[in-house]
Amino acid sequence: MKIICSKNELLKSMSISMKAVPSKTTMPILECVLIDASTDVIKFTTNDMELGIETIVQGSIAERGFIALDAKIFFDIIRKMPDNDVTISTDDNLNTTITCEKAKFNIGGKSGEDFSYLPIIEREDCVVISQFTLKDIIRQTIFSIAPNENNKLMTGELFQISGDILKVVSLDGHRISIRKVQLKESYSDKKVIVPGKTLNEISKILSGEMEDMVSIFFTQNHIVFEFDDTIVVSRLIEGEYFKIDQMISTDYETKILVNKMELLNCIDRATLFIKEGDKKPIIINIQDGFMKLNIDSQMGSMDEDVDIDKDGKDILIGFNPKFLIDALKVIDDEQIEMYLVNPKAPCIIRDEQNMYTYLILPVNFNQARQ
Amino acid sequence: MKIICSKNELLKSMSISMKAVPSKTTMPILECVLIDASTDVIKFTTNDMELGIETIVQGSIAERGFIALDAKIFFDIIRKMPDNDVTISTDDNLNTTITCEKAKFNIGGKSGEDFSYLPIIEREDCVVISQFTLKDIIRQTIFSIAPNENNKLMTGELFQISGDILKVVSLDGHRISIRKVQLKESYSDKKVIVPGKTLNEISKILSGEMEDMVSIFFTQNHIVFEFDDTIVVSRLIEGEYFKIDQMISTDYETKILVNKMELLNCIDRATLFIKEGDKKPIIINIQDGFMKLNIDSQMGSMDEDVDIDKDGKDILIGFNPKFLIDALKVIDDEQIEMYLVNPKAPCIIRDEQNMYTYLILPVNFNQARQ
Repeated sequence: MKIICSKNELLKSMSISMKAVPSKTTMPILECVLIDASTDVIKFTTNDMELGIETIVQGSIAERGFIALDAKIFFDIIRKMPDNDVTISTDDNLNTTITCEKAKFNIGGKSGEDFSYLPIIEREDCVVISQFTLKDIIRQTIFSIAPNENNKLMTGELFQISGDILKVVSLDGHRISIRKVQLKESYSDKKVIVPGKTLNEISKILSGEMEDMVSIFFTQNHIVFEFDDTIVVSRLIEGEYFKIDQMISTDYETKILVNKMELLNCIDRATLFIKEGDKKPIIINIQDGFMKLNIDSQMGSMDEDVDIDKDGKDILIGFNPKFLIDALKVIDDEQIEMYLVNPKAPCIIRDEQNMYTYLILPVNFNQARQ
Repeated sequence: MKIICSKNELLKSMSISMKAVPSKTTMPILECVLIDASTDVIKFTTNDMELGIETIVQGSIAERGFIALDAKIFFDIIRKMPDNDVTISTDDNLNTTITCEKAKFNIGGKSGEDFSYLPIIEREDCVVISQFTLKDIIRQTIFSIAPNENNKLMTGELFQISGDILKVVSLDGHRISIRKVQLKESYSDKKVIVPGKTLNEISKILSGEMEDMVSIFFTQNHIVFEFDDTIVVSRLIEGEYFKIDQMISTDYETKILVNKMELLNCIDRATLFIKEGDKKPIIINIQDGFMKLNIDSQMGSMDEDVDIDKDGKDILIGFNPKFLIDALKVIDDEQIEMYLVNPKAPCIIRDEQNMYTYLILPVNFNQARQ
């Protein structure tokens, strides 16, 4: 095999491919990128068995062939090269020479035969959405997936399509995030659980431009994202997702309207006195016209009033401040509405159209104080 | 005590003061900043017993007094405050209230009585230099101090003044860095060893502007840097510095002229195949018209030619690539001159006026290869 590509094109393609290279694995072939120039195009493929990425690389093929190279070493070599055309050539012993101007690197390759190719997916039933919207909806929900594998379902996000609405849900046992977006057309119903890792990686690759589109294909076990010169294939998480509609009540005893930035900055200040892993709650005393936020710790105390509009009863309630911050950070509205029932029932932050709903469980602060 | 200062002024002063707050100490009072408003000015003092910083803070004093506050917590509180005037007031029990708009923090203070004030230094015999030059000369030499305390002298830098020349020297047993700058006037001879830590911290505080000046005072045991609203006092390292003039020979067998960026980029590429802590040398084969750089490792090999002008004998010599990179990075010249004797003798990079001299010991690559 012998191919010639510009350094920048290789850099761009490898930074996409690296997203499906596992940092730790017992199978060395998974640490490789497959460089496939056996047809008329140059394709880079990486695959960590859960997530696979295939991307087309612009360049010229002087001699057809394919080779698997350690992805990290190859990426590092490309990065250090002068800004010019790079030639990659292999010999019969899988020795690979990478040259650019006067610089010449030699590394050993692996036979492409051992490489795990991406599963072949029938591309039908495709949903089209802008890269901007997909990236945004991931950002607005990904923080409330569960970080560990104790409950596999919680490590993914529900992607549900009904008519022209895409609904994305994540939950971790302490909170639920729900976002809806309206699609340009209606589609048949779909309901899958996409691994959080896939969504994290894909949102790093997406351009985030409003005009750039991504096509999403659904199969029994896989979801496929196709955009620009890249195809991302991910396994789905098997199982029945939580029945979240039953968890979200529309009843409330107290409704408040508050400036989002004022509340966010105030909670952010309060976190100063909370060490990592500390379960100290922030205590919010909601009264007519204002809420008083208070935190006490060994380091000191902090209190501050925030102006609000209130409907309903006064309430004294405690929260893990991080959960409030996570939700407030991804809401774009200037004013937000919070709905409360009692100090033991969840607080819900949502807009009138229910395009977003964030549910947060309170903390029993009397227990926490003891 | 009660003082009012703008958030930005407090931020600026505390980011200077923090440089003399130890990250680990058995004496909690050293973790404090002394806020002294007992006279007509507000002064912040921090002191880790080796390095002390005093800086004047703009603001108004409503009630005179002084207090010692945990520097890190105080700094964090200021950072999180709204962008407005901040009031700091203390009561008789050393409780300190920090308020800004509606935010109110309470923390416990310590009596300023226990605080270690800066030593009182007689300010005579002052050397004046621009902040730009001092910052630059530190950057150009600090990398070759020894990182550990096995040899205390090597953890500092020699500051030597003879006439109108300031000479700064650092060495770590493998290499020597020497920089000279011409001062605006002549001074009496001075020769002190300044701790590397002091120089690192002070170069973070210096503005680096050509027009801003710094006055340097020398005493038996201390060096004092005075600039803007800030005084930095540091202990000196005791002892007689190494006789470096004896180590630097002007004889050579081979002299080469090479483009600095080409050589630097080439060595940088070669380091790809060197893992942290690995002692693998880069091997340089100097011939007429070019030098061939080569590195071999388990990961692969790299070689590249760099054009040179050569006087004298061919030579094959090995180096720790990091040492070459460190020196090349701080040389501003486009072309550099390297002087070599034989594969076991040091290589010297210097300009014609001897304003900079970098000596680097070679590595015995035959041993290293085995």
